[in-house]
Amino acid sequence: MTETKSIVVERLIPYSAERIWRALTVPALVAEWLMQNDFSAQEGHHFTFRAAPVTGWSGVTNCVVLKIEAPRLLAYSWGDGTESDSGLKTVVTWSLTPEGPVTRVRMEQSGFRPADERGYIGMGSGWPRILERLEQVAAKQGG
Amino acid sequence: MTETKSIVVERLIPYSAERIWRALTVPALVAEWLMQNDFSAQEGHHFTFRAAPVTGWSGVTNCVVLKIEAPRLLAYSWGDGTESDSGLKTVVTWSLTPEGPVTRVRMEQSGFRPADERGYIGMGSGWPRILERLEQVAAKQGG
Repeated sequence: MTETKSIVVERLIPYSAERIWRALTVPALVAEWLMQNDFSAQEGHHFTFRAAPVTGWSGVTNCVVLKIEAPRLLAYSWGDGTESDSGLKTVVTWSLTPEGPVTRVRMEQSGFRPADERGYIGMGSGWPRILERLEQVAAKQGG
Repeated sequence: MTETKSIVVERLIPYSAERIWRALTVPALVAEWLMQNDFSAQEGHHFTFRAAPVTGWSGVTNCVVLKIEAPRLLAYSWGDGTESDSGLKTVVTWSLTPEGPVTRVRMEQSGFRPADERGYIGMGSGWPRILERLEQVAAKQGG
């Protein structure tokens, strides 16, 4: 029957949850570690991430903000661009858990179908570098 | 700082949790969908999975039963064989959640370090087929 896979990446980041939350939610900061975007921290907000287009992909990722509980939880849908729609419908959930002076950052991208295997493999190797960049962006913030 | 990845595979299986639980815990059944083993459903029990050895790997996976809550939760550590010890220390957690007449089966293998990337990729493509076989073995059981 139906089968889906998720990617989970966890990273201990040596800053407060509030500081990491800013890097996760301020559009200009998100652009530094992930992609250009018109994100806004409001449930129900539709937005896109925009990367350079490549053959077979418009570079656009269509998203909707699903849940916000500052500074602990942020979830948004993560779907295909309109020009190369494969039907990808995943959800990206960020969870921040303070552990003493550091914060455990957990990213889960769920909902990969068997047909999304290529995206699963690509994102599975991509997310760890993205979280590394997230930490670098948080490092430049105060708090 | 420290970073780990997990593989999560979820599959809706059209049988009761009790029936799937038997396929997950009876050693002769586990051998049909996963590997030869000396599993026993007791917390703290040390056991191994044994596959045919290949170059660079003894075929042995060393495990300890960490948690059992029949018929909902089963967790065991999943480490490297002694002859090819790369220091792999992951945990495999099975969760069964009844959803009407079917059961949501969730497998999470957590704790892959950056050094374990090869195993992460291999197991990430392997687990969906394993869950498919688990369903086939459950299909042959009563209940």
